[in-house]
Amino acid sequence: MASITIKDLQEVLGVAISGDHRAFTRLAGFADASEDAIVFAENESAVARALESKAGLVLVPLVSAIVANHRVLAVKNPKYAFALIGRWFDEFNSAVVHETARVEVGATIGEKTSIGAGSLIESGVVVGERCEIGANVTIHAGTRIGSRCVLQSGVVLGSAGFGYVKGPDGRYVRFPQRGTLWIGDDVEIGANSTVDRGALGETRIGRGTKIDNLVHIAHNCILGEDVIIAAQVGMAGSCVIEDGAMLGGQVGLGERVTIGKGVMLGGQGGVLPGKRIDGEGQVFWGTPAQPVREYLRDLARLRKR
Amino acid sequence: MASITIKDLQEVLGVAISGDHRAFTRLAGFADASEDAIVFAENESAVARALESKAGLVLVPLVSAIVANHRVLAVKNPKYAFALIGRWFDEFNSAVVHETARVEVGATIGEKTSIGAGSLIESGVVVGERCEIGANVTIHAGTRIGSRCVLQSGVVLGSAGFGYVKGPDGRYVRFPQRGTLWIGDDVEIGANSTVDRGALGETRIGRGTKIDNLVHIAHNCILGEDVIIAAQVGMAGSCVIEDGAMLGGQVGLGERVTIGKGVMLGGQGGVLPGKRIDGEGQVFWGTPAQPVREYLRDLARLRKR
Amino acid sequence: MASITIKDLQEVLGVAISGDHRAFTRLAGFADASEDAIVFAENESAVARALESKAGLVLVPLVSAIVANHRVLAVKNPKYAFALIGRWFDEFNSAVVHETARVEVGATIGEKTSIGAGSLIESGVVVGERCEIGANVTIHAGTRIGSRCVLQSGVVLGSAGFGYVKGPDGRYVRFPQRGTLWIGDDVEIGANSTVDRGALGETRIGRGTKIDNLVHIAHNCILGEDVIIAAQVGMAGSCVIEDGAMLGGQVGLGERVTIGKGVMLGGQGGVLPGKRIDGEGQVFWGTPAQPVREYLRDLARLRKR
Repeated sequence: MASITIKDLQEVLGVAISGDHRAFTRLAGFADASEDAIVFAENESAVARALESKAGLVLVPLVSAIVANHRVLAVKNPKYAFALIGRWFDEFNSAVVHETARVEVGATIGEKTSIGAGSLIESGVVVGERCEIGANVTIHAGTRIGSRCVLQSGVVLGSAGFGYVKGPDGRYVRFPQRGTLWIGDDVEIGANSTVDRGALGETRIGRGTKIDNLVHIAHNCILGEDVIIAAQVGMAGSCVIEDGAMLGGQVGLGERVTIGKGVMLGGQGGVLPGKRIDGEGQVFWGTPAQPVREYLRDLARLRKR
Repeated sequence: MASITIKDLQEVLGVAISGDHRAFTRLAGFADASEDAIVFAENESAVARALESKAGLVLVPLVSAIVANHRVLAVKNPKYAFALIGRWFDEFNSAVVHETARVEVGATIGEKTSIGAGSLIESGVVVGERCEIGANVTIHAGTRIGSRCVLQSGVVLGSAGFGYVKGPDGRYVRFPQRGTLWIGDDVEIGANSTVDRGALGETRIGRGTKIDNLVHIAHNCILGEDVIIAAQVGMAGSCVIEDGAMLGGQVGLGERVTIGKGVMLGGQGGVLPGKRIDGEGQVFWGTPAQPVREYLRDLARLRKR
Repeated sequence: MASITIKDLQEVLGVAISGDHRAFTRLAGFADASEDAIVFAENESAVARALESKAGLVLVPLVSAIVANHRVLAVKNPKYAFALIGRWFDEFNSAVVHETARVEVGATIGEKTSIGAGSLIESGVVVGERCEIGANVTIHAGTRIGSRCVLQSGVVLGSAGFGYVKGPDGRYVRFPQRGTLWIGDDVEIGANSTVDRGALGETRIGRGTKIDNLVHIAHNCILGEDVIIAAQVGMAGSCVIEDGAMLGGQVGLGERVTIGKGVMLGGQGGVLPGKRIDGEGQVFWGTPAQPVREYLRDLARLRKR
């Protein structure tokens, strides 16, 4: 089992700690903490509760009035420090290609990338280094994935998009779905989510973007960097989600919608095809989505007694 | 093929039937019933149609004015009796671990539990007795499952939750997702649904709870007993769903929502983060969810001509 | 690599072209077109841009005022012609049953049907000719599939429906889910979608119907022919969707809803249990769904400033 020493912590967190040779083996919440565990506390009342737990080390904020002692480590942002320590532990994950995973000839897998049982990587796919690919994942040809990505179990990447042309006989023929899918570094995609490849051209997910479970991203969508997509969001073809935007759970976007940089769209919100919403840090809500203040005003008017 | 005799029926249904040695091999609807089939009818007009079918045995309500004959069996609740007979037949399912299922060393599988093709049970997982696990199911480490559970094909249990901490560089680092998932007896989960493990601590699904297809249950949600969750429901982290609550299809819950005991929330309803709705047997509707009477009043006001 | 000659094009598109022996190897968008690529343009400005690309052949509308030259082929509907050429290329797909696919004894697979890695076809399933079945697909017993169907990766067909009967002890017993699933010719189903078999009787998807990713179709739903179902739509048990209807993304239908022939229901729309909406070519929106004109009128009234 990996254990992190105080010296390791100095490096991970960039803080100076002298003369302490202890080591810790895990991260915990207060309830199940033990002497080998690190916990974090973001404010004074949480610090008090943390110190009542059995945790061996408590990450506390610098502004804390807590008297320093060997159980307490003051850092700028305890939750972030806790996450960094988590990442440190994660690097001890074994990077194994499971024997039942199927990596086709012509696929390229980077170093220290793990692939779970039953997953398929088709020919021509390129996967970067240190990725974690879960079980029963399917990655179709034409997909290119950066480094340090996480694809949870059941994810399907590079599926054919949903586009049809109606013929003179009233029947639908699939529009060619022969494009590609590009995924940047540090992207994470939740269980059973699906991302279609481009019809012609590319579907694209920018560096650092995080996607929750059961999300649907259609052909030719372009997602920027550090975008947050909560569970069960669905977007139709050719949407653009700019850097740092956040979509709440079950949000639905019509075709060719643009979500501007840093916009936050609340859960279950919807945007009609071709529309654009904008405003860094602005919160939108409802269907059709509107600024939250207007949404609440209309809701109050509707629900007046 | 299994067949159920009148004597078996006496035991399954707790009714007394004398001097009849027939046996039946299947359950059916009226349209495809045959002499070896059992059907049920809940009211007099259904009884009449049932008797016109070729069914060998018709379960009818005790209050029925139907003249008793060898084709008719009166029980308190015919639909429930029909379901109990279904359960009797189900016990003849073979309990096979498919040769392509992968049960890792250190996983514990109870007696008479079946596991379908391509499924993965990671090390440390505990599964009770008489469970039915479909094909291409993934059960991650840290998951503990009771007895008589049903996990349909494509289910993912114990995936990592969706929680990130933004660093000073504007980039997200995953909050540690190192908790567990506990599932009680008699829980059933539909195809391609996903249940995340706790971040720290536990995600928990109580005894007897039934979950439909494509449902998303986030980290640290606590579901009580005999809860009903229809398809495509999504709940964010740390929600609490108390005993006997019912969520309609596509319901969405924000973080830390509480749904009180026995509450019924209609399809597509939404509850904002941190809110609680309460009232045993009360029906709520809409987003933000409100009592159905108020919802209908507001709807009528909005849609007045 | 397959290449399509001008002579092949004559046959595929039913147009007459004389004295040209060129061949093309792929379909493309303008941006990545090359001399071996075919593109299409639906109007004059697109034609101009197409001719600026490096495409070897441009499909243009008959009404185009474009001077004929060897790079231009005038057809009645260029996009449809492009799709037909795509279908021509698709027929060169290899029809392989992957070595890790599991076709159980007693399943019947038609000629030239391909089955991807990790997929399971249970005993008794019948699949027609020239179907494409992706990876990690699960097809349960009691399912019958026509010819030329596409089932993308992660699809689950014939799962048990969501129906329970509450007993006198307050606990739920599953209502028997012993019916079948029938899927017509030319049906296409997107990644990670789920279709339950009938409880008693049949679930049915008519010829030519197209279904996107992460869709849920419950037990005993009857879908007509040439129906379009966008991503993340969910329908409860026993719904009827008549021929040519279109459901936008994230639409939700209660039990026993009927969507009339040719009705279009916009994204996120909802229909209450037992209701019917009708009107060929009519557009409905909202929850509960109403004709789009009324929806917009109410929206304008609500959002007046």
